[in-house]
Amino acid sequence: MNINGNHFRTIWADPENSRHILIIDQRQLPHQFIIEHLCCLDDVVTAIRDMHVRGAGLIGATAGFGMYLAAINALDQEVDKKLDEAAILLNRSRPTARNLGWAVERVLTATRTVHTGVDKKEMAYKTACEIADEDAAFCKQIGEHGVELINAISKRKNGEVVNILTHCNAGWLAFVDYGSATAPIYAARDAGIPLHVWVDETRPWNQGAKLTAWELQQEGVANTLITDNAGGHLMQNGLVDLVIVGSDRTTHTGDVANKIGTYLKALAAHDNHVPFYVALPSSTFDWELEHGAEIPIEQRSGDEITSISGVTHSGKIDTVRLAAPGTQAINFSFDITPARLISGLITERGVVSANMEAIHALFPDKILKPAQA
Amino acid sequence: MNINGNHFRTIWADPENSRHILIIDQRQLPHQFIIEHLCCLDDVVTAIRDMHVRGAGLIGATAGFGMYLAAINALDQEVDKKLDEAAILLNRSRPTARNLGWAVERVLTATRTVHTGVDKKEMAYKTACEIADEDAAFCKQIGEHGVELINAISKRKNGEVVNILTHCNAGWLAFVDYGSATAPIYAARDAGIPLHVWVDETRPWNQGAKLTAWELQQEGVANTLITDNAGGHLMQNGLVDLVIVGSDRTTHTGDVANKIGTYLKALAAHDNHVPFYVALPSSTFDWELEHGAEIPIEQRSGDEITSISGVTHSGKIDTVRLAAPGTQAINFSFDITPARLISGLITERGVVSANMEAIHALFPDKILKPAQA
Repeated sequence: MNINGNHFRTIWADPENSRHILIIDQRQLPHQFIIEHLCCLDDVVTAIRDMHVRGAGLIGATAGFGMYLAAINALDQEVDKKLDEAAILLNRSRPTARNLGWAVERVLTATRTVHTGVDKKEMAYKTACEIADEDAAFCKQIGEHGVELINAISKRKNGEVVNILTHCNAGWLAFVDYGSATAPIYAARDAGIPLHVWVDETRPWNQGAKLTAWELQQEGVANTLITDNAGGHLMQNGLVDLVIVGSDRTTHTGDVANKIGTYLKALAAHDNHVPFYVALPSSTFDWELEHGAEIPIEQRSGDEITSISGVTHSGKIDTVRLAAPGTQAINFSFDITPARLISGLITERGVVSANMEAIHALFPDKILKPAQA
Repeated sequence: MNINGNHFRTIWADPENSRHILIIDQRQLPHQFIIEHLCCLDDVVTAIRDMHVRGAGLIGATAGFGMYLAAINALDQEVDKKLDEAAILLNRSRPTARNLGWAVERVLTATRTVHTGVDKKEMAYKTACEIADEDAAFCKQIGEHGVELINAISKRKNGEVVNILTHCNAGWLAFVDYGSATAPIYAARDAGIPLHVWVDETRPWNQGAKLTAWELQQEGVANTLITDNAGGHLMQNGLVDLVIVGSDRTTHTGDVANKIGTYLKALAAHDNHVPFYVALPSSTFDWELEHGAEIPIEQRSGDEITSISGVTHSGKIDTVRLAAPGTQAINFSFDITPARLISGLITERGVVSANMEAIHALFPDKILKPAQA
């Protein structure tokens, strides 16, 4: 996608030195555009844990490259051992994200099909690149399927602007390219469908205010920033035609873990008969868990609530404390939207109902055999 | 209530000069405790409009004193004219708040019962003081009725901590004393019932983070600050026993206008079978409007979303910009929670179901006669 008219992905191998992986440090957006070099596994673990990168697909792609960096920095005879160690460290770095474990496992499985250290390193690189390319390709396909939903609403409204609400950033910044929730939006823009996006600011990390609003602005998509509190009021007043969000993990029964607050928007959509869709590549499905309640919910520092950073009048980036000293805060990062509140899941293979039968029918090759489960 | 152990109300006449009304400038809390002098109607309009004072009861009490200041600064023969002008200006200062129009009307009505300028000035003062005293007394009574709800939960939980969630600040800072939503909490604390309050930070103005958390801290009530996004997750996980919020205007049919985001919490409470109560003095009822959708919803500047102020590491209060330059934001201040989602209204006369029959039965003296309506 575009930043100041230049095409970027969110992660790529340094063309001058493929032992370096490059990312956009998303902590600094939209105030500063900084490209960071990741040179070893530790860099990757830090980047994921401290949210230099974030978002379902991008966490997965970064973990894939983290496995590669663990391999490339290992002695040839120690690649397997280092990959096993890396897998443990990476899996611990963010607990809710399903793409993380999926990407780590994919590199582990691939490297086990070859036998020399040199081949394993090459395979780790090839697999990490495949994960990234596939993430972008799948998001593009999500766009192709999701645009049909927007198009149908546009026709029903006789070409009036379609208002889409999204929570957090499931944009291209959350994936390698295109995004999941944003892919149908970009496809609709490309198809000339008039649309406007309500952007939840998404406390406490403000992914909406910092990333989604900026991303849509860069892409020329009309958008308005709102507080997380506002969506219900907008829906009550007919100002939202469609909600599209992403997911950090979706059970194969259709329950969705996504950024904290998603559940509240799903309730409001349900109460106001607004369609509520979740866009996700199949790498986000958890084929083991039966119930959303089993998904581990990450808890981050309360400081993310009591303090915030931004740009002062003098142009300096500074952090300010918002609450009285000594204020206790608790910071759950995700919540579970039960399948019953979801109109459908937009995947790379098409739009599917949020229930096990439908999901299994669309992904028969992904279902765990009883022995595996 | 107490600040650093000293008793305060939120508004009072200067004991040294009764032509000055004193308020706590709530924009500065919790970072600075500043008492502001209001000396004329303009000061009062500014204080209400720019939120030096806020909250249902306190807006009403301040408007009452605003009418007094308009009268006291008028020539004796011009008191009625100046009061009529003041009524228009005050009523325009915040559109959603019902207590505002109610207090203005009460002073107008009272001053019409006497005939000389001097008597009208005296009556305006007396009525403004009555409004403030009654607000405090009614909130105390709300506490006496509401504590029974908390006590019943406490007994059912065998004395385990009762977890109460609140949104915005319907604390003593929003009234003259005690608060509406907090009055039952303070009464429960006084009765020795173990409790803990989940405080929604309440974007964009952060009344929860800045006022409620601080107020409860000053009063020694255990509390934890959360994002507005978190309440649904807490309720899904059995961590909320009761929701109590305030109201800025409640129709006599039971629909509640309250701080934006309240509706989302009511939906989550309903979905998780958590009792959802609204605490309000009768001065907040609108006896004319039949439907919540008819309540005017204030829209404030988008800058309240894109920028925020707090304390820097060096102890300076500063404002930082959170979103990219040029980001458009829309800022609705209230939403409507329909009566069907409300377990009950806690008023100074008791707890009542959120429907017209029950409300009329409890307040037969307040119902508008057909000719008035």
